[in-house]
Amino acid sequence: MLDLVTLRRDFHMHPEVGFTEFRTATKVVEILTSLGFEVIYGQDAMDGDSRRGLPSEAVLEKAYERALRDGANPAIVEKMRGGYTAVIGVKKGKSAGPTVAFRFDMDALPVLESKDGDHFPQANGFRSHYEGNMHACAHDGHTTIGLGLAEKLADGDFSGTIKLIFQPAEEGVRGAYSIVQKGIVDDVDYIFCHHLGVGVPLGEIHGGSHGFLATTKMLAHFHGVSSHAGASPEQGKNALLGAATALLNIHAIPRFSTGSTRINVGVLEGGTAANIIPAYAKMVVETRSVSEEVNAELEQRVRNIIAHSAAMHELEHEIEVVGGAIPINYDVDMAELALEEAKQVEGFHSFVNGAYNAMGSEDASFLIKRVQDRGGKGTYMSIGTDIPAPHHHQKFDIQEEILPRSVELLNRIARRLLT
Amino acid sequence: MLDLVTLRRDFHMHPEVGFTEFRTATKVVEILTSLGFEVIYGQDAMDGDSRRGLPSEAVLEKAYERALRDGANPAIVEKMRGGYTAVIGVKKGKSAGPTVAFRFDMDALPVLESKDGDHFPQANGFRSHYEGNMHACAHDGHTTIGLGLAEKLADGDFSGTIKLIFQPAEEGVRGAYSIVQKGIVDDVDYIFCHHLGVGVPLGEIHGGSHGFLATTKMLAHFHGVSSHAGASPEQGKNALLGAATALLNIHAIPRFSTGSTRINVGVLEGGTAANIIPAYAKMVVETRSVSEEVNAELEQRVRNIIAHSAAMHELEHEIEVVGGAIPINYDVDMAELALEEAKQVEGFHSFVNGAYNAMGSEDASFLIKRVQDRGGKGTYMSIGTDIPAPHHHQKFDIQEEILPRSVELLNRIARRLLT
Amino acid sequence: MLDLVTLRRDFHMHPEVGFTEFRTATKVVEILTSLGFEVIYGQDAMDGDSRRGLPSEAVLEKAYERALRDGANPAIVEKMRGGYTAVIGVKKGKSAGPTVAFRFDMDALPVLESKDGDHFPQANGFRSHYEGNMHACAHDGHTTIGLGLAEKLADGDFSGTIKLIFQPAEEGVRGAYSIVQKGIVDDVDYIFCHHLGVGVPLGEIHGGSHGFLATTKMLAHFHGVSSHAGASPEQGKNALLGAATALLNIHAIPRFSTGSTRINVGVLEGGTAANIIPAYAKMVVETRSVSEEVNAELEQRVRNIIAHSAAMHELEHEIEVVGGAIPINYDVDMAELALEEAKQVEGFHSFVNGAYNAMGSEDASFLIKRVQDRGGKGTYMSIGTDIPAPHHHQKFDIQEEILPRSVELLNRIARRLLT
Amino acid sequence: MLDLVTLRRDFHMHPEVGFTEFRTATKVVEILTSLGFEVIYGQDAMDGDSRRGLPSEAVLEKAYERALRDGANPAIVEKMRGGYTAVIGVKKGKSAGPTVAFRFDMDALPVLESKDGDHFPQANGFRSHYEGNMHACAHDGHTTIGLGLAEKLADGDFSGTIKLIFQPAEEGVRGAYSIVQKGIVDDVDYIFCHHLGVGVPLGEIHGGSHGFLATTKMLAHFHGVSSHAGASPEQGKNALLGAATALLNIHAIPRFSTGSTRINVGVLEGGTAANIIPAYAKMVVETRSVSEEVNAELEQRVRNIIAHSAAMHELEHEIEVVGGAIPINYDVDMAELALEEAKQVEGFHSFVNGAYNAMGSEDASFLIKRVQDRGGKGTYMSIGTDIPAPHHHQKFDIQEEILPRSVELLNRIARRLLT
Repeated sequence: MLDLVTLRRDFHMHPEVGFTEFRTATKVVEILTSLGFEVIYGQDAMDGDSRRGLPSEAVLEKAYERALRDGANPAIVEKMRGGYTAVIGVKKGKSAGPTVAFRFDMDALPVLESKDGDHFPQANGFRSHYEGNMHACAHDGHTTIGLGLAEKLADGDFSGTIKLIFQPAEEGVRGAYSIVQKGIVDDVDYIFCHHLGVGVPLGEIHGGSHGFLATTKMLAHFHGVSSHAGASPEQGKNALLGAATALLNIHAIPRFSTGSTRINVGVLEGGTAANIIPAYAKMVVETRSVSEEVNAELEQRVRNIIAHSAAMHELEHEIEVVGGAIPINYDVDMAELALEEAKQVEGFHSFVNGAYNAMGSEDASFLIKRVQDRGGKGTYMSIGTDIPAPHHHQKFDIQEEILPRSVELLNRIARRLLT
Repeated sequence: MLDLVTLRRDFHMHPEVGFTEFRTATKVVEILTSLGFEVIYGQDAMDGDSRRGLPSEAVLEKAYERALRDGANPAIVEKMRGGYTAVIGVKKGKSAGPTVAFRFDMDALPVLESKDGDHFPQANGFRSHYEGNMHACAHDGHTTIGLGLAEKLADGDFSGTIKLIFQPAEEGVRGAYSIVQKGIVDDVDYIFCHHLGVGVPLGEIHGGSHGFLATTKMLAHFHGVSSHAGASPEQGKNALLGAATALLNIHAIPRFSTGSTRINVGVLEGGTAANIIPAYAKMVVETRSVSEEVNAELEQRVRNIIAHSAAMHELEHEIEVVGGAIPINYDVDMAELALEEAKQVEGFHSFVNGAYNAMGSEDASFLIKRVQDRGGKGTYMSIGTDIPAPHHHQKFDIQEEILPRSVELLNRIARRLLT
Repeated sequence: MLDLVTLRRDFHMHPEVGFTEFRTATKVVEILTSLGFEVIYGQDAMDGDSRRGLPSEAVLEKAYERALRDGANPAIVEKMRGGYTAVIGVKKGKSAGPTVAFRFDMDALPVLESKDGDHFPQANGFRSHYEGNMHACAHDGHTTIGLGLAEKLADGDFSGTIKLIFQPAEEGVRGAYSIVQKGIVDDVDYIFCHHLGVGVPLGEIHGGSHGFLATTKMLAHFHGVSSHAGASPEQGKNALLGAATALLNIHAIPRFSTGSTRINVGVLEGGTAANIIPAYAKMVVETRSVSEEVNAELEQRVRNIIAHSAAMHELEHEIEVVGGAIPINYDVDMAELALEEAKQVEGFHSFVNGAYNAMGSEDASFLIKRVQDRGGKGTYMSIGTDIPAPHHHQKFDIQEEILPRSVELLNRIARRLLT
Repeated sequence: MLDLVTLRRDFHMHPEVGFTEFRTATKVVEILTSLGFEVIYGQDAMDGDSRRGLPSEAVLEKAYERALRDGANPAIVEKMRGGYTAVIGVKKGKSAGPTVAFRFDMDALPVLESKDGDHFPQANGFRSHYEGNMHACAHDGHTTIGLGLAEKLADGDFSGTIKLIFQPAEEGVRGAYSIVQKGIVDDVDYIFCHHLGVGVPLGEIHGGSHGFLATTKMLAHFHGVSSHAGASPEQGKNALLGAATALLNIHAIPRFSTGSTRINVGVLEGGTAANIIPAYAKMVVETRSVSEEVNAELEQRVRNIIAHSAAMHELEHEIEVVGGAIPINYDVDMAELALEEAKQVEGFHSFVNGAYNAMGSEDASFLIKRVQDRGGKGTYMSIGTDIPAPHHHQKFDIQEEILPRSVELLNRIARRLLT
């Protein structure tokens, strides 16, 4: 039987950021296989071109080699090479019935974990082995819960099919879309996604969460021509003039009366030296809105501003979408069903159907939306745990007693729907 | 015989700005006719579409009516209606020979003339009758000299042809181009243009002047969509955002290693009220360079910046060229010829072949260039007069003794070339 | 007895924009006086320095002379000269009691009224006599209602005091603040303000209206130094560079998580000619928020951006506040009281306690706030009328049957509170 | 006797960028000492606070350790630790006389040297050992010439004093100023600086070079406050908005009628992630002018624009001067003297007193200016060599036969002035 705490601490010690979850995903494949699940992974689980914000090949390769050094099964991980780190576990029950899916995200963050003595992982010897990376958003717990659930459902004693989706790159809302585009949830009737913590205390559970914002993250490149700034400034095509013009005008996009918005140019970098007309600049832009339509309009305006800021200075440009999410409209009856089951699980004592989730954006939204678009239902639950420091903080941690409770809850939900 | 002083003072009392020289031009037609010149005017003297910076129809009509009220010959002025105020006087000599042209500009400035007792026109009763307009750049003198020259040459006692070009709208470098485009100087072998004053003292004459800059004056219109700034800001297309972006980026056009440059956005106006997204803005832009090629490149860059600043905010735009000039490359031998003749005229005692002229730009440049392009020659002379205040100043004035001397000089030049 | 329709049509034919309501206010003074009211007006009714967005002296004087030509009582209007056009009518009842105030705004708009045959005022011979000005926001009706109410209350048969406030310059939210600052409502216990129309159909009434935005309107001046753009550009201090920089950065002020916001630069004008470095520019800026605190922060950020955009180009600047309003928090029991009385008035059949008012901002907010700050109560009612075209449109009109009904409603409210 | 080719190739194999010339300078100290020169170095040769664009401590330390590994004399290099890499060799002659100085720059460039077989250093086994650094501007040759000259003058058989100045960090015009500020040239009567190549072919020499521009290189830091772009954008202080505003306005600084100018923002970098309001940005700015006064005015305007662009967005800022130079006004008689001596040296056949030097800026200008300010004289010579690729190119190289010829020339100049 799986030891959930040991498993979670192993993942915690080996945090891997988005699309580099080679060791984590390999472990997931091994365990699911050992439990008798059909396992889909690598290019079978993701549409390569739909991955957003993929790291550079060099970064991917370095992480791949680290995973091998740290004992990742070479035969399995080889199929994930290049950033194909999604894993899908499928288990058919003893008779026909609906398909129920659960989503678990696996990626860590580029955060340097605390070495303070009062930080639980440090005090208990399972601080990150990868300096500068950390599981500071509970995805180590999510992955563990997914495997615990697999173990519970390994008997196949239900009517219908279980799909356990282990997703890469939730941070930056980059990974889910490629799973959707591969068609993984096209046959799903019910989908349940969740997050630990997010402002909900231990013992409380939200059956549904709303307030997730539609968002698009874009990376823009401006390509000009360098020239000596003293000898021939007029021969340059100044990438920074284009980028700075875009930056100001993107921030000047008007407020919308049809839905609140957010806009940010988070990064601007360009140029090489004082005496060279800058030939290249890049810019990272983020749009958000409570409304998917308004966010789409914001994205369109950003694209137009960038295109003309570039052309104004005779620059070439490209824009990559490196992340995105849409709002979640959870099904109220699914939330109610989850709460009913939670009432049967020891440790839960506060039950909320739906509440505002302060996490901003979630690309589980794409999975839920696809299921709903094809006639299914879904919800996004917030499962409480007290936390000593905010999400993404170097002292973030969860209470490990929530792991078995969450497994039990999800197991009850699955069996309720598959009878 | 014409009384030059009376004539100049009459013009001075009735200053008419560019393309509204209805009364002035009508007088010129009458006098040239009375002297036996063939007179070309109205649409025969100018290409309508090549006029730059034409005032609005309302302004043209108002000025037209004022001229009528002030005694302009209705039959003549009617042919000038709508801003066709160029007049060409042609006199064929008794035998064949080359064609010699002289240019005289007629327009005044939107300057309020001084009422101070020490201002000569005020003290002598010939201050402007048109409040807010003033002959503050000596064009009243230039026109007078042209008519004096016509009188001298009325005998036709020369070999060849004389063309006296009375040009509208030299201020803003707007009028000459339309005369060129009509073909008026296509048969000219020698052309002489000049200015009184321009930093040269009484008694001195420059046979040629250089340093005139190539320049383009543009009027850009930005058309957007208005919207209530509180209720629906996202429905507006903000003309001022486009215009302000253009303004900053136009000023940011780089220096050129191939020739010194100047750029100015002289006017920006847009919007109507605090709570309305501005639907319209206009902008006046000026480029200059010592090099005609560099100025053309500047104009191209300004056009590109305006186009993309507009498109960035989904605006429509148009750009009108409302003025322009090119550098003058005067013919050194023509300058020398002028100086030789000046030495025969009493009152001149300082003779300079060519010197830098501080006036900036002159659209006589188009006339001279056309003559040179077709194998002819030309020059631009600066004829000295002391002035009590700078050109364009409300107390500007000239010394009237320079009028007959200038007539004599030009007469000598004409006869020298037509023998 | 007053003929309300005749009165309204007279006001409609003589529309006067903010702070120039000389003829209107004079009529109000005459009628109130004839009805036995104590009348406070001119500098006694307004704090001169607290008037916002006052027109220029020339504009005020021209309007003043027009009012005289149109029969305004010279002795009365003389006291309003220079834009002191508020009128306060006070009537003490037969015994002591609370003070109840009503607000009526009198100003018109700079809108050219339609001449179409289907426009009721045109068809019925009472179109505006002042071309370009129009009562397109029902203030002619409001003023009429105020005078009708005065007539009803002229008997003094109540316990307490009535204050009828005829306010100038509600458009642009400019006039109320000066009445507040004069202390006019410092002794008021109950205040009722209202608007006809605003999206409410005939027969419906809202006892209270919310959603009014806090707003500040600013006029900024940028003072630089002109210079010849060709000869000495470096000697200029370019006012348009400062203004355009301010414009872009004002629009780039971030969204607030603490309350929705609006920002607009509605007007930018600067410069005189293509070849002159612009020495002056002006800019009209508007901020809004549902939160008074957020609006104050927006105003502070706009001021800071303007100050540093100016200083960046070595410009001087000033900022005038030319309009402003705050949100309205109406007293729910006052709204209820109004509805109870409306139920007694024939013609009303739909009753709403409080609803969102789409008009944006109202400076009645200052009057209501002052009354509430001193322990009193107040509300802002929306009284329905069908309208053929939106407020501020050249074909706007009201249904005149609403005038006597509104008078009756206000009379009932007054008497209810003064017994 | 020194083998100049061996020496140059040793320097070429160990290229050290500005202020990290630890190994090079240590060798210079050793050789000068062995030749009997008094040697001033470390903090005795440079004013620490006047060094511009000093690398970070980490970079300095890493280079220091590399020098130790590559055999730098520990006792000597220890005194240079932290970037004190100037070396001054002084030799007094046998009798009193004037002081004559020569300047040799020692630093390399961050250029990756070519590995192509046709690149002479590669083909001959002396390509750079330090990947990414390269002597691509002939300073290896300059240093070698300086040591060769020291050997010639070691006999002390002259009247007066020799000062050989081995300067760090000429690239980026950063090092000379600290030598001047230490007072090193305060007693110098004649100073000769030179460059190999710079467009002059083998066999030609320019006794003086003009056209060097005054320049200032600035590094600006903008410090704001980060915040979550979705949750609380208003709590951020956006460093990139300040920096982009500065960038546009710096480029918009007007042309000067008093001297041609250049302006460039060569680098802009800020922000960390799409969803974080950027808390920090940095910017590298360069100004240039033919006039030292105009360049000072440009620098002042850049500082003002940066200060107010920062303050507009409530940012803190600092500006470091990381490089600078002034124009060179060489003494024509010194140029003539140099040419006269060159005529005595075999290999020179083309002699130009003064010509435009295309290299842009040189901080030898500070050394020459200080000497001239104290009554001395100086010049900057261009000594010809054919080059296979432009300066700063990865295939740049010099012809080694110019090394002994240059030594002989400088020796002749020294002895001519010291007799």
